[in-house]
Amino acid sequence: MKYSQRIVSLSESITIAISSLARELKAQGRDILSFSAGEPDFDTPKAVKDEAIKAINAGFTKYTAVSGIPELKQAICEKLSRENNLHYDTNEVIVSNGAKHSLFNIFAALINKDDEVIIPAPYWVTYPELVNYYGGKNIIINTNDKTCFKITPQQLRENLTHKTKLLVLNTPSNPTGSVYSKEEIQALAEVLKDTNVWVVSDEMYEKLLYEGEFCSVASVSDDMLERTISVNGVSKSAAMTGWRMGYCASKDKKLIKLMDNLQSQCTSNINSITQKASIAVLNGSIETEIQKMCHEFALRRNQAVELLNAIDNISVITPQGAFYLFVNVGLIQKDSMKFCTELLEKEGVAVVPGEGFGMGSYFRFSFAADMQTIIEGIKRIKHFVDCSS
Amino acid sequence: MKYSQRIVSLSESITIAISSLARELKAQGRDILSFSAGEPDFDTPKAVKDEAIKAINAGFTKYTAVSGIPELKQAICEKLSRENNLHYDTNEVIVSNGAKHSLFNIFAALINKDDEVIIPAPYWVTYPELVNYYGGKNIIINTNDKTCFKITPQQLRENLTHKTKLLVLNTPSNPTGSVYSKEEIQALAEVLKDTNVWVVSDEMYEKLLYEGEFCSVASVSDDMLERTISVNGVSKSAAMTGWRMGYCASKDKKLIKLMDNLQSQCTSNINSITQKASIAVLNGSIETEIQKMCHEFALRRNQAVELLNAIDNISVITPQGAFYLFVNVGLIQKDSMKFCTELLEKEGVAVVPGEGFGMGSYFRFSFAADMQTIIEGIKRIKHFVDCSS
Repeated sequence: MKYSQRIVSLSESITIAISSLARELKAQGRDILSFSAGEPDFDTPKAVKDEAIKAINAGFTKYTAVSGIPELKQAICEKLSRENNLHYDTNEVIVSNGAKHSLFNIFAALINKDDEVIIPAPYWVTYPELVNYYGGKNIIINTNDKTCFKITPQQLRENLTHKTKLLVLNTPSNPTGSVYSKEEIQALAEVLKDTNVWVVSDEMYEKLLYEGEFCSVASVSDDMLERTISVNGVSKSAAMTGWRMGYCASKDKKLIKLMDNLQSQCTSNINSITQKASIAVLNGSIETEIQKMCHEFALRRNQAVELLNAIDNISVITPQGAFYLFVNVGLIQKDSMKFCTELLEKEGVAVVPGEGFGMGSYFRFSFAADMQTIIEGIKRIKHFVDCSS
Repeated sequence: MKYSQRIVSLSESITIAISSLARELKAQGRDILSFSAGEPDFDTPKAVKDEAIKAINAGFTKYTAVSGIPELKQAICEKLSRENNLHYDTNEVIVSNGAKHSLFNIFAALINKDDEVIIPAPYWVTYPELVNYYGGKNIIINTNDKTCFKITPQQLRENLTHKTKLLVLNTPSNPTGSVYSKEEIQALAEVLKDTNVWVVSDEMYEKLLYEGEFCSVASVSDDMLERTISVNGVSKSAAMTGWRMGYCASKDKKLIKLMDNLQSQCTSNINSITQKASIAVLNGSIETEIQKMCHEFALRRNQAVELLNAIDNISVITPQGAFYLFVNVGLIQKDSMKFCTELLEKEGVAVVPGEGFGMGSYFRFSFAADMQTIIEGIKRIKHFVDCSS
């Protein structure tokens, strides 16, 4: 065999067809409005940039410890303590090239062949891909907009087997923006008691919250603290997607050490300059900027939800967090790939088909775009839907 | 099983014991001279830093294409064409988080269980670790200072089987500084003709060359161009270890695409700022700075080789490239870990035991340190050896 089995098993992203088509139409001179972005449209805050430039000028451009410089790991521990009531030592956290890389390391460290991984759908596409890559088995629990895209304790119980290795939770969620309340997490935690199931809690969108309170999964009980690996980063909250900094925390020091070993043979430390810059995010010095971005996102969310729900035959629930709307178009078209392709061809509006997140009948609309573009885009969606109905 | 089989199989670095001891002694106030660094002691050139700062100020801080921005991939292609007479399209290269990450992707994409990988020893420790990680089998070919640590065509022929998947070459070599001539590569190429063996050519130290001419492995024939994956980066030649930029090139577009898929689920694009900064290296605009560093390294090499060879019972061959000396201490102590531990404890000199590179009886001495430190360090080594003999 010319290539390895494992790499051939990786699927190509289902959303590539749409983004290729969008690029093609743009190249043809078509006016394309894109709502497919998975990143804030704001610039990285100045205080962060200043730290980066300072690091460059100071020659902080050499190898660091693989798991991150001590002061960054300290800042992560203090952030988790201050904001999430989670108490970790610096040897219980590891810094990686984005939260995606943290997940890659975690799945690498935990999944053996045929281990079952429970993933609520709709899901961020990387989760099931990594499970496949490591020879595990995806156990998908379907949700829908009627339950705000959240799994129930009963669903979790029904899907547990002696092969269950871990449960993935993502709150606030990409692509739905749903947020689990403390009570909901406690109820899920109750089901996991007396099992050996790990929990991976992807909390990347923590700071982009528009109502309610954020509850970190590990914080609801000692039992959950022990079994949960918390994943977070600076990409989404601080508009730093290009810098590549994510981290995870676990009370299992050996697990952290094993991931450190892997990372030492895979990428070594992350960019040294990014490490210095990230401290400015984790120590809380750009909270005002984050709140400003958050406020702007909230206004857009309200406007977009209102306009979309005014269109006949489609509907969207108001997300509590993140910057996505997961729009139900099931009354018009269950094949959302088809819906999105036609929407793009006819109206020049790019959104991501729900199939990319394991669920047809929906599309993901990112409101990380300016208000005017949002209004114009939804006007076009209305025109498309009205003509289709 | 709590963790995965694959991650538990990764060994902890054999050199950690030495570096931990060095840190401990330093913390006790001991005066420790370290020659264990795998990175230049020079600062990143100003032209590179300027590009990075420009990118930050321009807000070039968002996601990019996973495999790298087009202008960086173009600069890589032009560099390979201009300097190595190798002609690639931009979809035949991929940019990763350091050359180590390129290797991680390549091994992931090629190695199936029980595939044999031929690695000349002494070797950079990541090669066999990655082979283990992916379930392959390491076929180690031993060399020594009498053959300048290079394998012969006969050795290669004797180790080929129907299971041989790839051969790893590293020229100039870490840890020996040896460089394969064009004729030597042609002779190895002859052996590989009519086989399906891939060649991974790690050319990270290409620009740190003190005599002779550098020959890129893929450049010796059309056959070698087809089977070789060239790995390179900016870390060592441009003093950019902390920036994390490496790349690889292959005429097999599908292989590049598969690595792109993997990277899209592992780390995504590398740091966006580093991408802009790296262009300044690849387009040749810091060649004068590289030559200056290279000149300084050459002076240190000459001095260190002379001083070390003046010590009774140890010897070192003059390396043609990189910034390492691989010093033979076999007449005194075959257990080089023991030698290095005692040298550190008694004289406060840190070097890396040969066992870390798959070969006892030697230690690696990095001359990425200033001249005065080198002279003082070797004085201490002489004292240690004279007392041991």
